[in-house]
Amino acid sequence: MQTSDIHAFFADEDTLDREDYLFFTYVFETDGDPREAAASLACEQSTAQWKRPCVDEDFRPAHAAKVVDLQVIDESRSSVFAPDFSGKSRYTRARVRIAHPHRNFGARIPNLLTVAMGEGAFFCHGVTSIKLLDIEFPESYLFLFQGPQFGTRGIREMLGVWDRPLFFGVVKPNVGLDPQSFAGIAREAWEGGLDAAKDDEMLADTDYSPFEERMRLTGAARRDAEAATGEKKIFIANVTDEVDRMMELHDIAVRHGVNAVMVNAMATGLSAVRALRKRASVPVVAHFDCIAPMSRHPHFGVSTTVLTKLQRLCGCDAIIMPGFGARMMTSDDEVIANSAECGSAFGNITASLPVPGGSDWAGSLAAMYEKLRTLDFAMVPGRGVFGHPMGPRAGARSLRLAWEAIVRRIEFTEFAADYPELRAAMETFGAPAARAETTGPMPAMGYTGVPILFQRN
Amino acid sequence: MQTSDIHAFFADEDTLDREDYLFFTYVFETDGDPREAAASLACEQSTAQWKRPCVDEDFRPAHAAKVVDLQVIDESRSSVFAPDFSGKSRYTRARVRIAHPHRNFGARIPNLLTVAMGEGAFFCHGVTSIKLLDIEFPESYLFLFQGPQFGTRGIREMLGVWDRPLFFGVVKPNVGLDPQSFAGIAREAWEGGLDAAKDDEMLADTDYSPFEERMRLTGAARRDAEAATGEKKIFIANVTDEVDRMMELHDIAVRHGVNAVMVNAMATGLSAVRALRKRASVPVVAHFDCIAPMSRHPHFGVSTTVLTKLQRLCGCDAIIMPGFGARMMTSDDEVIANSAECGSAFGNITASLPVPGGSDWAGSLAAMYEKLRTLDFAMVPGRGVFGHPMGPRAGARSLRLAWEAIVRRIEFTEFAADYPELRAAMETFGAPAARAETTGPMPAMGYTGVPILFQRN
Repeated sequence: MQTSDIHAFFADEDTLDREDYLFFTYVFETDGDPREAAASLACEQSTAQWKRPCVDEDFRPAHAAKVVDLQVIDESRSSVFAPDFSGKSRYTRARVRIAHPHRNFGARIPNLLTVAMGEGAFFCHGVTSIKLLDIEFPESYLFLFQGPQFGTRGIREMLGVWDRPLFFGVVKPNVGLDPQSFAGIAREAWEGGLDAAKDDEMLADTDYSPFEERMRLTGAARRDAEAATGEKKIFIANVTDEVDRMMELHDIAVRHGVNAVMVNAMATGLSAVRALRKRASVPVVAHFDCIAPMSRHPHFGVSTTVLTKLQRLCGCDAIIMPGFGARMMTSDDEVIANSAECGSAFGNITASLPVPGGSDWAGSLAAMYEKLRTLDFAMVPGRGVFGHPMGPRAGARSLRLAWEAIVRRIEFTEFAADYPELRAAMETFGAPAARAETTGPMPAMGYTGVPILFQRN
Repeated sequence: MQTSDIHAFFADEDTLDREDYLFFTYVFETDGDPREAAASLACEQSTAQWKRPCVDEDFRPAHAAKVVDLQVIDESRSSVFAPDFSGKSRYTRARVRIAHPHRNFGARIPNLLTVAMGEGAFFCHGVTSIKLLDIEFPESYLFLFQGPQFGTRGIREMLGVWDRPLFFGVVKPNVGLDPQSFAGIAREAWEGGLDAAKDDEMLADTDYSPFEERMRLTGAARRDAEAATGEKKIFIANVTDEVDRMMELHDIAVRHGVNAVMVNAMATGLSAVRALRKRASVPVVAHFDCIAPMSRHPHFGVSTTVLTKLQRLCGCDAIIMPGFGARMMTSDDEVIANSAECGSAFGNITASLPVPGGSDWAGSLAAMYEKLRTLDFAMVPGRGVFGHPMGPRAGARSLRLAWEAIVRRIEFTEFAADYPELRAAMETFGAPAARAETTGPMPAMGYTGVPILFQRN
């Protein structure tokens, strides 16, 4: 790239009409000049060739992506991938903000992904490693998406629960149960106090558990549990399947009284999620399968922030994400940031319900609540409810008791002395998770009226 | 996990009916005992909880994944992710082969991805890093997929070209051209000798280049080029869009005489590709966008082998993949292996045409041919044709001339002395790529009859 060409891929952000651009933030590593590498990044993801040979034209003013900020972070003798891709011994790490004119691709998820994390970004001369950290969207672009149909508020309205976190649970054993047994233990958990029972992410429409029969029996069990408890209940059916079958599964589920569907968003593709949201008459819940392979490396791939935003944009009413605890290999800060992202200001797009998942049980609720510092989340234990030694009814009750302890400001272990469901849980799952160090006031308790807690956007 | 439980997740492969299982190969790193970590991997991706509390049952015999081979590779004091996820200073790297009963999920791409690269694999206690290297499929499972409708043989039949590699080209400038100009330069390239002109992976249905108009004009240009040259020509239209719009774009394209479609497979999702293949009446060409973020790290993520296999399984007739050259950050061995994978034995599934892409031009053909050691590939230059200083017609002709030099066993630089198209290309693109060190006989030249070269499966 010539020096004059490099210059053409830089711009002063204040001179741009921000409504015309998406803003991509990357951290990248280069074995060359960071300014040249940043220009190449903008070039390769937009007007890789900006004129025909022998024709006097220049597509850059209208179509080129432009570097609007470039900050060198540090220099190092080691590379994420060295020595495989470069013989050089000095690498510069930099953070770049690129304004990309969305007229190049429009309000289309696959085309947006192609531009932001496709060949241009990941096969760019001089860029030895790269991670997409963030995408910012102008309001007029967001307006072209539906976003969640229900979101946090809608799910709370369905349940009539406003004053506490929500309690989801993954029916276990996750594979192998026949539909009758499945519906039976889901009902037990609902009756014990669970708000929403859900299919495991691995559960499909199989011979040993035909989807329609599972829907028929579990849909009926849900209504029976509502009658028995006087509480509203949700069943989240996993409709993850081929994209042309997924819609049909949604329809079957709804026909049998199922009132939410789950989709393994990256496994089906985000565009299929957007299509499902258009079709859906019930909340769409996303599960985080297949995100980790592209997001876990700190300096390479795509951040979970981007993927959380995209799931919300595509209309996920609730987003199950890697939560707290060692197994989830996700820092507390990342869990907290992704949970907050579900409710951040996002144009016309409703807040999604964050559902940090891990190996949770009653004893992890207080720490989760204190770290997230909001009531607007759901926890989603599996074994914590359905592997409870006294059974799913007691497992579900243990969650509600754990919340009662928090409201009454009684330590879990002390409170447990009076409740066998909590004592048995501790015997199986160990000591309660370490409480967060709280440094500010917690959200109001005993909230029963106007949903002020859900007005974050 | 108890010692007796670990044992339940191991099996002797010879005792299994191989038709009932998919075989996943992973390389993983653990900060604990490799045998226990391998058992956890099998457990977490299948029967994470194999019985209800207080019920005498065991779902493992029918539903558990089983470790059938485990090989320790080495030990190290450093980890892919340390010190972030583990305070331990000793890590064991191991290779594991897991037999997973496909009755758990069936012949469904999203559900298969969930199992092989979802929560179970990437959030497994004791597994500090993991890469999915391979998936092997039994024939009875492959039989549930259509695979490519045309494949290498079908594309060759369309073109009537049997005795050389195929010449694809990406129309450039990639974004910004109006449909009339686009069709004009595509026609020039076809007339110069290109077999297939294609949309850039970033080209969408936009205001500046409405899809239907581009199809109408370029479809007509394709037929004009056929009439002018007496050769068959292909136009590959990028139908990458939201999954519910992609099918419509296919229909519009075909209606206007377009005879192939391209999809950015991971950007739309593999399941959408499978759905497109069901609908398509023309070859489906896959582009590799969004693969690198999950595949590039040598010890983490998902291998390109797996993704090549899956694209073939989903019915991609041609697979554009990262090719040779520094910009593509892919080893020659990996390019060669993925190209070979397109034609390897795969049950009833037809061979796909491998299309290694990079910054190719006439001068990289000989090296590509010698490295791949087959005629069954296409090259796909962009600027090498459409950025040729004498224009696309000369750019396309430079490819055919480069092939003529190979057939006549004349060095490129020597041959170039007689052809301005080659001399000008060298002035712009530099010296020809270094030839491979050939160690065996090359495929027969001047092949004109029975397609023996396409009988690899």
